[in-house]
Amino acid sequence: MSDIAPPVAALIEEFSKLPGVGVKTAQRLAFFVLRSPSDQARRLADAIVRVKESIIFCSRCFNITETDPCPICSNPARDQEAICVVEEPLDVLALEKTGVYKGLYHVLHGALSPMNGVGHKDIRIDELLRRLETGEFREVILATNPGFEGDYTADSIKKDIKGKLTLPDLRLTSLARGLPIGGDLEYADEGTLSRAIEGRRDL
Amino acid sequence: MSDIAPPVAALIEEFSKLPGVGVKTAQRLAFFVLRSPSDQARRLADAIVRVKESIIFCSRCFNITETDPCPICSNPARDQEAICVVEEPLDVLALEKTGVYKGLYHVLHGALSPMNGVGHKDIRIDELLRRLETGEFREVILATNPGFEGDYTADSIKKDIKGKLTLPDLRLTSLARGLPIGGDLEYADEGTLSRAIEGRRDL
Repeated sequence: MSDIAPPVAALIEEFSKLPGVGVKTAQRLAFFVLRSPSDQARRLADAIVRVKESIIFCSRCFNITETDPCPICSNPARDQEAICVVEEPLDVLALEKTGVYKGLYHVLHGALSPMNGVGHKDIRIDELLRRLETGEFREVILATNPGFEGDYTADSIKKDIKGKLTLPDLRLTSLARGLPIGGDLEYADEGTLSRAIEGRRDL
Repeated sequence: MSDIAPPVAALIEEFSKLPGVGVKTAQRLAFFVLRSPSDQARRLADAIVRVKESIIFCSRCFNITETDPCPICSNPARDQEAICVVEEPLDVLALEKTGVYKGLYHVLHGALSPMNGVGHKDIRIDELLRRLETGEFREVILATNPGFEGDYTADSIKKDIKGKLTLPDLRLTSLARGLPIGGDLEYADEGTLSRAIEGRRDL
């Protein structure tokens, strides 16, 4: 980058720190910013700063929020006895869009990953156990991502709940696995298809 | 985005205005910023603002620069009689990296595209003709991108130079087309291979 103006080189470097953005993409983004109107570039810069200044994590569910507790945790209309455990705030968003679930959430902020050195202390498992111990929950939906790390995390949380807590009436569930709606049977991977057969239902 | 905190929704919206960034990618980028240290997010925001504040276009070659004229135009060691016409500032960067070319540049900021409504007035062709008319150039290298729009732009510029200017001694050239170094013959597309055969050289 020796021949490029330092402010441009700096912007390319900062862009390339974003996930999935290599040097070529960072260059393209930087030149797009260069050519875009000043107020558009300013809006992007402001949005970045404002998000860091105004967004906090809810002290109960650890979802992102501007107020603590978050709008979901402080909404008395939500089912206070159900808790859905997810890996990321985006998962909350996806579930909320369905409009089907009316309970509370718990955001782990990651999944256990022995391969990548992500252990119990790195995600919000202890906070979940404390919530379950002190609250009066009827059901815990373990909605981690379908896949090795998500399944391992759900299994680990299940063992913790069964082993460390005394909650005999607590129902532990996970989301159904099977064919995605609109998916084609012939294109489904073996794992999905196996689960779809195992979980087949009477008509 | 109704259930997401407004500052996060705003950041996702701004990110999704970047080229090649859809909503899903914008979400990923926004949550990455949310989790990254404050000073890293601040550096990205500052770099965006600084680039808009400090970067201008050189009044001679229209390359991006902090000073006018740019370091290349104001460097007396550069060959003042050669001018290389490129589409984008990144093309200047790519050519400079080779260290082979020692002349001046002219950045068009785009290519003619009748399909997309990009005409003569939208890119810096008139400015190029004025430079050629008033300067004393020996050679113009038309280094637009190999492809329909780039070739069309180069052809159009060639006609303008031949038709509107009286510069009988000016040499017009274009970059060689052929097999890329390190490329495999069997994977070369037909167009590239045709050019490689047509442009074959004696050993």
